[in-house]
Amino acid sequence: IRTFKIASIPGDGIGVDITEAAVEVLQKLSQAFGTFNFEFDTLDWSSEKYKQRGYYAPPGGVEGLKKYDAIYFGAVGWPDVPDHISLWQMILPIRTTLNQYANVRPTRIIPGTISPLSACAANPSLLDWVIVRENSEGEYSGHGGTTPSTAHAPHTVATEVSIFTRVGIERIVRFAFETALHRPRKKLTMVTKSNAQRHGMVLWDAVFYEVAKEYDGRVEYDKMLVDAMTVRMVNRPETLDTIVATNLHADILSDLAAALSGSIGIAPSSNLDPTRQFPSMFEPIHGSAPDIAGQGIANPIGAFWSAAEMVRWLAGSDGNSNIVGLVDGPGVGNMVKAADCLMKAIENVTQAGVKTRDLGVRCACVNAIGFQRATTPTY
Amino acid sequence: IRTFKIASIPGDGIGVDITEAAVEVLQKLSQAFGTFNFEFDTLDWSSEKYKQRGYYAPPGGVEGLKKYDAIYFGAVGWPDVPDHISLWQMILPIRTTLNQYANVRPTRIIPGTISPLSACAANPSLLDWVIVRENSEGEYSGHGGTTPSTAHAPHTVATEVSIFTRVGIERIVRFAFETALHRPRKKLTMVTKSNAQRHGMVLWDAVFYEVAKEYDGRVEYDKMLVDAMTVRMVNRPETLDTIVATNLHADILSDLAAALSGSIGIAPSSNLDPTRQFPSMFEPIHGSAPDIAGQGIANPIGAFWSAAEMVRWLAGSDGNSNIVGLVDGPGVGNMVKAADCLMKAIENVTQAGVKTRDLGVRCACVNAIGFQRATTPTY
Ligand SMILES: CC(C)[C@H](C(=O)O)[C@@H](O)C(=O)O
Ligand SMILES: CC(C)[C@H](C(=O)O)[C@@H](O)C(=O)O
Repeated sequence: IRTFKIASIPGDGIGVDITEAAVEVLQKLSQAFGTFNFEFDTLDWSSEKYKQRGYYAPPGGVEGLKKYDAIYFGAVGWPDVPDHISLWQMILPIRTTLNQYANVRPTRIIPGTISPLSACAANPSLLDWVIVRENSEGEYSGHGGTTPSTAHAPHTVATEVSIFTRVGIERIVRFAFETALHRPRKKLTMVTKSNAQRHGMVLWDAVFYEVAKEYDGRVEYDKMLVDAMTVRMVNRPETLDTIVATNLHADILSDLAAALSGSIGIAPSSNLDPTRQFPSMFEPIHGSAPDIAGQGIANPIGAFWSAAEMVRWLAGSDGNSNIVGLVDGPGVGNMVKAADCLMKAIENVTQAGVKTRDLGVRCACVNAIGFQRATTPTY
Repeated sequence: IRTFKIASIPGDGIGVDITEAAVEVLQKLSQAFGTFNFEFDTLDWSSEKYKQRGYYAPPGGVEGLKKYDAIYFGAVGWPDVPDHISLWQMILPIRTTLNQYANVRPTRIIPGTISPLSACAANPSLLDWVIVRENSEGEYSGHGGTTPSTAHAPHTVATEVSIFTRVGIERIVRFAFETALHRPRKKLTMVTKSNAQRHGMVLWDAVFYEVAKEYDGRVEYDKMLVDAMTVRMVNRPETLDTIVATNLHADILSDLAAALSGSIGIAPSSNLDPTRQFPSMFEPIHGSAPDIAGQGIANPIGAFWSAAEMVRWLAGSDGNSNIVGLVDGPGVGNMVKAADCLMKAIENVTQAGVKTRDLGVRCACVNAIGFQRATTPTY
């Protein structure tokens, strides 16, 4: 029996609710299979603590995460702490310090739930995507500044400097091609805004086509501008499979993807260090949702699905998987099977009609034709 | 009778098809009303010409536009010219040289057409937005570069520098508040990504709240992160009214808005110099669509609606309107009425079921319940 050490960071708001639920689910899962288990250290890096003591992660805290096998993250952010402080003190430094350069965000329509794009009946084949997000540089480099720093002078100027390195682009593009290669449809769509942004985005395009040559005939690929991509996601979702984009573009597109697939509450994400030198981090893509925090009504699917992705990733830790541990490798013991099992359990629940409010009926058309699903909020 | 001099730039692809149609419509409109008319100069600034002679706008061409009352633009871009060349040679310099700092993009569900969000019946009240886009700086500043310039060295780095000035933010925010103030619901949602982008975006937020004070009690306002905004647009479209965002964010959100309202083919845009020192430019938001160019099947609604916005803007040229000429002012002669009339004519056609292919039925649910609109492609 293999034991994995997991740092659990519930964070704020519903991050706490769903992390508790996910930890319980992971423990049940390991008991059911009996060949692996998890030891959790819960780290109280929250906005509450920040207000008391002036920091989220304590000095050395992010470095200290290196000793874990993985990190499970809830959500961060609270109304009385400026967002750029909470993020730059914790989630963004974790991603970059631990070399988690690939943020992987699968989206599909969970059977039993309803996509706003196919209002009357779930049509799971309509939308089945993986968004691969560059997670270490680009628009989230944090570079830039404000002059003069008081920001009150009429001539104040502020910059945001997006930094794109050839190394950074190449590795994420290659990761995306590998991901596409391991999916049934083997398609990759690359997204930039290289018409208006004429430096970094043009480099991105160039590097993409260089790497693409290695996959010619094995992966079908095309290129979209980020604005037009939103239109394609709405109008022709079935034409998309794997998607690769910059830190900011993929951030926006993955929220849209979650909404189009049914709810932001179901969407998972994996912040991966594909080299496996450092631990990877798993978190639902939703935020801390102060309005419903602590009420036990948050949708836990995004958290459970993220937990399943963590199990799948750890399954690759015996060295049997390629860089895309998410989709490959026989795994430690039967962990790949365990991850599949957890996904199936989620679907059993949604198909039985047990759903949180965010998955309820909302389409006028559905009511119009008298088609009404029972929605029983449970969590 | 007042004569307006209009520079018409059909550009590429369906830009040519729809500009021809729009010019015809504008001429019919002025004949019908008899108190104003248009003199068009057609400028052949196309990708075709670029390939022959090496430029889109000739030297001094953009400056030369200052002598017109307005500019009517089709679309630019063709597969064999890199997009960043076509854009930086024409559309982007026009926007900045002519001080067109406000890009205004109304979106609503045209009666008779179908939004993917309300699949079975048009529900025009579901979605009625104006997106106000900062059009002169930010992510489209064009600053940055690539080192080393060959882009082949493994250590190549490229930057995109977004520049935000207090002046630039303040004027667009104020313009957006004025726009909101003149709409029935008087609501404004401001969009940034100030959690991850901690310089320019933070300045944007600060300036927004300063300007907002002037409108307290007159305009209801709130703030969204750009990623979460896409979710709100899909899930709660009826809660939005006027939206203000940066050059890139609003570019993305306005394409999404068009798709959610029915089709990218119907969406108009106005590139305004609110000071009226220089001519403003009107263009559908769609591109040159090489795949359907020259076939006479492009949706002309975005072009006609843009023409209506031009007429409305010119109506304010007698100095009777405030900076938001789009929604105010008695107008030159009866031009405001003429613009309304043109919009009504568009709706008469769509309500009669005469539609281009992009407005056809596409929702599985619609077929499922045997609800089928006649779709007759006509243009
Ligand atoms: C919390 C925030 C930094 C984050 C991001 O923008 O990366 C979130 O939106 C996400 O998508 O993971
Ligand atoms: C053609 C391109 C420069 C343009 C933009 O990104 O501004 C277009 O997408 C638009 O939205 O007007």
